[in-house]
Amino acid sequence: MSVTAAQGFSATGVAAGLKPSGKPDLALVRSISRSVGAAMWTANQVQAAPVVVSRRHLELAEPQAIVINAGSANAATGAEGEADAEAMAEGAAKELALSPEEVLVLSTGVIGVRIPLDRVLLGLRAASLALSPSGGGAAADAILTTDSGPKLAVAQGTGFTVGGMAKGAGMIHPYLATMLAVVTTDYPLAAGETGTFLRPAVERSFNRISVDGDCSTNDAVVLLANGASGIARDAGTDEAFAAALGDVCGSLARQIVADGEGATVVLEIHVTGASSQGEAVAIARRVATSSLVKTAVFGHDPNWGRVLAAAGSAPHGAGFAMLDPGRLTVTFEGVVVFATGAPTGRVPELAGPSCRIELDLGLGDGAASYLASDLTYDYVRINAEYTT
Amino acid sequence: MSVTAAQGFSATGVAAGLKPSGKPDLALVRSISRSVGAAMWTANQVQAAPVVVSRRHLELAEPQAIVINAGSANAATGAEGEADAEAMAEGAAKELALSPEEVLVLSTGVIGVRIPLDRVLLGLRAASLALSPSGGGAAADAILTTDSGPKLAVAQGTGFTVGGMAKGAGMIHPYLATMLAVVTTDYPLAAGETGTFLRPAVERSFNRISVDGDCSTNDAVVLLANGASGIARDAGTDEAFAAALGDVCGSLARQIVADGEGATVVLEIHVTGASSQGEAVAIARRVATSSLVKTAVFGHDPNWGRVLAAAGSAPHGAGFAMLDPGRLTVTFEGVVVFATGAPTGRVPELAGPSCRIELDLGLGDGAASYLASDLTYDYVRINAEYTT
Repeated sequence: MSVTAAQGFSATGVAAGLKPSGKPDLALVRSISRSVGAAMWTANQVQAAPVVVSRRHLELAEPQAIVINAGSANAATGAEGEADAEAMAEGAAKELALSPEEVLVLSTGVIGVRIPLDRVLLGLRAASLALSPSGGGAAADAILTTDSGPKLAVAQGTGFTVGGMAKGAGMIHPYLATMLAVVTTDYPLAAGETGTFLRPAVERSFNRISVDGDCSTNDAVVLLANGASGIARDAGTDEAFAAALGDVCGSLARQIVADGEGATVVLEIHVTGASSQGEAVAIARRVATSSLVKTAVFGHDPNWGRVLAAAGSAPHGAGFAMLDPGRLTVTFEGVVVFATGAPTGRVPELAGPSCRIELDLGLGDGAASYLASDLTYDYVRINAEYTT
Repeated sequence: MSVTAAQGFSATGVAAGLKPSGKPDLALVRSISRSVGAAMWTANQVQAAPVVVSRRHLELAEPQAIVINAGSANAATGAEGEADAEAMAEGAAKELALSPEEVLVLSTGVIGVRIPLDRVLLGLRAASLALSPSGGGAAADAILTTDSGPKLAVAQGTGFTVGGMAKGAGMIHPYLATMLAVVTTDYPLAAGETGTFLRPAVERSFNRISVDGDCSTNDAVVLLANGASGIARDAGTDEAFAAALGDVCGSLARQIVADGEGATVVLEIHVTGASSQGEAVAIARRVATSSLVKTAVFGHDPNWGRVLAAAGSAPHGAGFAMLDPGRLTVTFEGVVVFATGAPTGRVPELAGPSCRIELDLGLGDGAASYLASDLTYDYVRINAEYTT
């Protein structure tokens, strides 16, 4: 049920003519009662126009609606692109009787070409008329690019709901697509609080996945909270909300990895015993982004040698995250393959749609997990065949 | 003529039975007159036994000979592996009437299995008898794994010679292979000076190449200098020697990239105008290791959007190397595709065996270059098909 699972939200998706396929490509999400919101954006220094505009809007007002288009990333489009993104927010604001600052804009698709603004504005009119409390599914479909299907997640708390949608790693010629996620909740949050809950949830979900180690210019995760559940808050409900938010973000993140370009296996990398949490993240990320590890998993090869080599050279600070082979234990699918500085000689079988790789560094308390997709022929095909 | 191009060196390669194919797999390089030497090793914290042993030997004595085997990496083999590497040095030392500390050992091949020491020792006896001033080619053949051919380079100075051999990125089941290079010269260097010349040459050559961004447990570059040319040194000859050494290292590094696993195109990435040289290196490396950039080049797609996204998220220190899209100019094969914050609309043609990508950041004087291979179906095939 996606972004309309929580009370007091409506959404829709329409075909505005941005995708050559004619499929739905423009989503609108709106909170019916007043909402507060927060977002986390790509860390890339090359930021798309909608990211620049939405960040500015978030500084000026609490978001009430989100416009999301697929088919054009509106990235690397200069001042004109920024004006286009502003015009999208203004167009939606006019239809919804909001101020432009109350509208966020997210885009995914082709980089370096201007968005066809006239089509977007016509589409926004149609979308504003089609908004519905049951439109979450349509919205989730409209934000997809080459994703094989929509990514939806809902978590029910006692008296409140958290729902979300995401799109992941498909490619739109001639550019990589974007990771976008919108999460809504009827849990009551005060202005400024949304980010406090969103940040740790994103840190443990969307920030711990890797399809190919590349970081888009348009990545965004937005949380809207409208309090429509009317429940009374206390420390216990806050904890339950944080858990529900974490579940929704975690589920969407995993769906993105499982549907990564060409993916056949989800790698689950768990690092424990690192000197610090930061070092654990660095090692988990290095293993998750190693082409050699990812091709091995594609070939169902429990190649712990590649895991060792990757883990031993994980950039952290000015050097590497600390690792002592003599204290390291590596486990594939529950089978210990390397311990006390030497191979155990045991050979695990890799077969299923996921592959769990555990590294216990034996140095401290730092722990972190990462999800990644394998590296396959289809990944190369998808990313090489769209030639200009 | 490889490592025997300079005066006063002999070498050979023999088949010791380490490769299942029966091809030559054991190389021996020896300086006939007394030599001084230095080496640079993998930065990986998981270091193979021969790396551990050779580092120790270098601290104790100037190297006079190098044993190199293919077929077994002797990595992740614990204390037994270290004893095996020591035994290899001792075996060679006995045949050559040297002390064990004067022998360096390099290995490449399968990780996590012990090296068949008896075969190596028999092979060393045969090799010591076959040593020849014309054996550089045989040595270069014996260190290969799945390389498609040997990597040789020679540079002639006025009165001196620098010669080298290398092996690169092929894979030996079940582990990635290793980048190994041995460079010899008859230029006269004093003990302790070798590293002073080797370090900058390696920094600008072997440390600026990427096949898949992974860092082996066995990587090594060794320089031996025996002064057999007998030429008189001054600042001018030192400069000429440094240039010749740079040429040999640069040529070997490029040959490794061109023969990278599955490679069809060599990417030449040139970053100028960065805030610092360190930031230039960070950005060049990030572009060189981007799977999206590498698949695009494989598809002959001048996908500057992917270059932008990679360059904008290049890890440096605790954050990213500085980049301002408004000041950035991106050039593909001499054609400016992105400038002053917007695409130029020009579409370069990518066709040849190399692809030159230039990024001028417009921020400072930092500059760096990187060579990388493209990411292809064959890369995935080579690294996925050897399943255990």
